[in-house]
Amino acid sequence: MRYELYYWPGIQGRGEYVRLALEDAGADYADVARGNRGMAAMMGMMEAGKGTPPFAPPFLKAGKLVIGQTANILLYLGSRHSLAPKAEAGQLWVHQLQLTVADFVLEVHDTHHPLGSSLYYEDQRAAAKKRTEEFWKQRVPKYLGYFERLLKSNGGFYLTGRRVTYADLSLFQIVQGLRYAFPNRMKAFERRIPGVIGLHDRVAARPNIKAYLASDRRIAFNEDGIFRHYKALDV
Amino acid sequence: MRYELYYWPGIQGRGEYVRLALEDAGADYADVARGNRGMAAMMGMMEAGKGTPPFAPPFLKAGKLVIGQTANILLYLGSRHSLAPKAEAGQLWVHQLQLTVADFVLEVHDTHHPLGSSLYYEDQRAAAKKRTEEFWKQRVPKYLGYFERLLKSNGGFYLTGRRVTYADLSLFQIVQGLRYAFPNRMKAFERRIPGVIGLHDRVAARPNIKAYLASDRRIAFNEDGIFRHYKALDV
Repeated sequence: MRYELYYWPGIQGRGEYVRLALEDAGADYADVARGNRGMAAMMGMMEAGKGTPPFAPPFLKAGKLVIGQTANILLYLGSRHSLAPKAEAGQLWVHQLQLTVADFVLEVHDTHHPLGSSLYYEDQRAAAKKRTEEFWKQRVPKYLGYFERLLKSNGGFYLTGRRVTYADLSLFQIVQGLRYAFPNRMKAFERRIPGVIGLHDRVAARPNIKAYLASDRRIAFNEDGIFRHYKALDV
Repeated sequence: MRYELYYWPGIQGRGEYVRLALEDAGADYADVARGNRGMAAMMGMMEAGKGTPPFAPPFLKAGKLVIGQTANILLYLGSRHSLAPKAEAGQLWVHQLQLTVADFVLEVHDTHHPLGSSLYYEDQRAAAKKRTEEFWKQRVPKYLGYFERLLKSNGGFYLTGRRVTYADLSLFQIVQGLRYAFPNRMKAFERRIPGVIGLHDRVAARPNIKAYLASDRRIAFNEDGIFRHYKALDV
């Protein structure tokens, strides 16, 4: 089946977690909004009356299904593409890990927009500085420490042990994003999470991921996405 | 099966979305942390080495499974207790709606803690005022307008039509919470969402929900939870 992914063109954003899974799986998909009339098609599907109109991108058209919410899309794709266990217990655990990643991603966005998205970052610098301080003092150690502990206790290569899941691909993206947005802070912090960094390197070396990262399908990080490099926040 | 729910005692919080589902289903469950040595048991399970230690409450012990993340718990419970469709497509749609509710709940918490949870509300009043302004101007209309539109277009009693799902119970909780936290603002806004209010009333009248709300198992809203009544934010 040829999937249709709908997400804002020009940023990695939440869509990237889906793109990484589709690419690792070697799935056949179109990144619709990046093509001709793609944005119009995306907005049209969100404004649909009946059926299952998504609240926001990303969403995936899979045959007759239109599936929204990043973690929900990955739940659908996971066991179909060897990126999650087939049994229910394993599916729930991987989904739980993904939802924890999603919570962290939201907090990343809050570092530069604590007062909300209607204001520009430039109009909330002081608040952003405060939020970022707490983020690095409390939240990054709490979240990445949790993943580090899981890796230590299961003695495996990936979050669930020996087999990769979509949650590992998402954790790879977290490391990539933090290194881009907070190069100084992340460089100092990384030595505390050798397991997570090892997982990152392992994912980056996967053939399909490696090829994707080198391709023009991989949008570069920029200051419109979730991970943004604002020097004032990286002291 | 007797479920064990683990959540902070003393607040409704994220645990309440699970409590409402368990209660509506008439499920046999223990709200462990509210009992003797309950907090110790909860912390112990989070510090567990092997297995599937949750990142945070709420989590549900269901036989041998320990399931974390609110929406993930509801995903597990839904089809088992007639609170979600059995077929995959319907499960994904209801889960998607729940994840959208969860995103909104996070934004509610951000209205009083935009700079993060390490600071008290009293130390971030100005930022909270700004965040709350945007919340009511942009975010509440966007989210509740979306649910209102779904209800209009499916002509049914509930978000997916004629049958209740756990997402309806959660939307009920949103209305309850907003009325508690922002009585003035919500009173003015409610007339724009008659469908959502009708759904709220319908859920409140369900026998098990009605009994639960009148019982001492239902913790009262207070200023420690997600929905907090801070008068300065309700002008």
